[in-house]
Amino acid sequence: MTRCPVTLHDIYLARARISGQAVRTPLVKSVSLSERFEAEVYLKLETLQPSGAFKLRGALNAIAALDETALARGVTTASTGNHGRAVAWAASRLGARAIICVSELVPANKVAAIEALGAEVRTVGRSQDDAFVEARWLVEDESMTLIEPFDDPLIVAGQGTIGLELMEDVPELDRVLIGLSGGGLLGGIGCAVRGINPRVQVTGISMMHGAAMIESLAAGHPVAVEEVETLADSLGGGIGLENHCTWPLVREVMSDHCQVSEHAIACAMVHFLETEKMLVEGAAVVGLAALEEHAIDIRGERVALIVSGNGVDMATWQRAKNMVDP
Amino acid sequence: MTRCPVTLHDIYLARARISGQAVRTPLVKSVSLSERFEAEVYLKLETLQPSGAFKLRGALNAIAALDETALARGVTTASTGNHGRAVAWAASRLGARAIICVSELVPANKVAAIEALGAEVRTVGRSQDDAFVEARWLVEDESMTLIEPFDDPLIVAGQGTIGLELMEDVPELDRVLIGLSGGGLLGGIGCAVRGINPRVQVTGISMMHGAAMIESLAAGHPVAVEEVETLADSLGGGIGLENHCTWPLVREVMSDHCQVSEHAIACAMVHFLETEKMLVEGAAVVGLAALEEHAIDIRGERVALIVSGNGVDMATWQRAKNMVDP
Repeated sequence: MTRCPVTLHDIYLARARISGQAVRTPLVKSVSLSERFEAEVYLKLETLQPSGAFKLRGALNAIAALDETALARGVTTASTGNHGRAVAWAASRLGARAIICVSELVPANKVAAIEALGAEVRTVGRSQDDAFVEARWLVEDESMTLIEPFDDPLIVAGQGTIGLELMEDVPELDRVLIGLSGGGLLGGIGCAVRGINPRVQVTGISMMHGAAMIESLAAGHPVAVEEVETLADSLGGGIGLENHCTWPLVREVMSDHCQVSEHAIACAMVHFLETEKMLVEGAAVVGLAALEEHAIDIRGERVALIVSGNGVDMATWQRAKNMVDP
Repeated sequence: MTRCPVTLHDIYLARARISGQAVRTPLVKSVSLSERFEAEVYLKLETLQPSGAFKLRGALNAIAALDETALARGVTTASTGNHGRAVAWAASRLGARAIICVSELVPANKVAAIEALGAEVRTVGRSQDDAFVEARWLVEDESMTLIEPFDDPLIVAGQGTIGLELMEDVPELDRVLIGLSGGGLLGGIGCAVRGINPRVQVTGISMMHGAAMIESLAAGHPVAVEEVETLADSLGGGIGLENHCTWPLVREVMSDHCQVSEHAIACAMVHFLETEKMLVEGAAVVGLAALEEHAIDIRGERVALIVSGNGVDMATWQRAKNMVDP
């Protein structure tokens, strides 16, 4: 068995580093979902982070751990989504230069959003891969530090601080449902909650197609997957064929997993806006989609759903609504 | 000068009573509004209370203060909105019987929502006035306790707990913008924040037409107003010609006030959903509407907007959206 790449102690260290920068997000009980599932259903609102998603916990932890020289040289990554926004925001808060590499195909509003958070945007090539090449070049040539999106112990430990907050707010927690993509979020939270109480059920949820971690678990090693368009687009992307951190960690801390259809994600997005009054991404609602679609029996349990992020517009929401009420 | 009917001490007593029942709601910094107004703009999310609005703070405080005999006899009120839901929820949490009186014209879904919170609904007559007569009859004949919507020191003190939380979270607060209706919310918060720091600016905001408190202030005594349809319908209604609590209190603790147009409210509702990703009532956004419409200069200030409640559906939101982009 591989040695666990992240420990509960790492997560406590992360919390000390990010405290005062990342928001200690509220855990609110959903009256409607608690009634529907005859359980205590809590929503962990990572959507209330300044960047709208949990990603800044890891980014803050990774950047805050740099020494002064590295901080002065700055950080880089290639992402137009929640991770890119999180790195931009975290670097700006910690006084580090940040260059976010994106391809020429990225729309102007996404570029502007990253610049508004205080980062430089470098536009290169015609694909995400080209952007990554540029980020790696900045590491080689300008000694900047690459902030990984998930496969790094500091990133995972940062996301794991969510798990500490869950256990403080609901010490009798029975289960947590977590969107599963690269495994940084699930690995971190799983490590925290099971480090405190090994009986907490840690359920990972991906979309039906392009679920890289689940396919890698089935294959017994990291595999590449084809990216398919999904409402839960933040859960897309591979886990990296050289994955060394989140792959062993998720195998160790995840109790079970399932996959949800686009229709189930759409229904859950509609519930969140119409009943919880929150406009959130498909990736933020896969826990509810799983409870509904797989009729997971949580009666009498205390259950937390991780709700992250809010990088979604009304047009996408309308698309979801039309899938539910055509 | 009238003796102030609520003190800072009353608010501390209220907090001890409602703690563990009402949510200590988060105060989140709005990145987008902070940038737009060159200030630190914070949102106090009372929408995350179990009943979706601040009203349960006052209801909990008033019900928790009852002695055992009164608790056993139960409580009543006449309201189909945030106050009715709050009383239903608070009574259920505190083990008191509650009868919410409504007219026959109230739609079934509103009745069902109140019943789901654990209260009985009594349907009487053809108007809100008829429902109030029934509630008063329950007080006379069955010795139930009437839970006032705002004009009661216990209700005001309950709402005032929001002010304590604001001062704890941002001790250097410069200004708070508060929707102004019967004055329970503004009176309570104003009493708390100015009791702690008299230099905090307390700004009350009402809609353009039917602003009962503002018209009463201008007249020098409580006056009746005509109710006009508005997106901020939770701010409608009179202050009571016999008002004895919130009228003197608001006069004492409010620094300034203004009124906002339906168009400004609609624009602010659109901002909240499209940018803050929150579906909230018109009454919840009047602070932002005032900042925009009256170009209030808050540069460099620390400003809190009270965001309450979320009793709004997509149809109403669409109506607001159409006012902005016809």
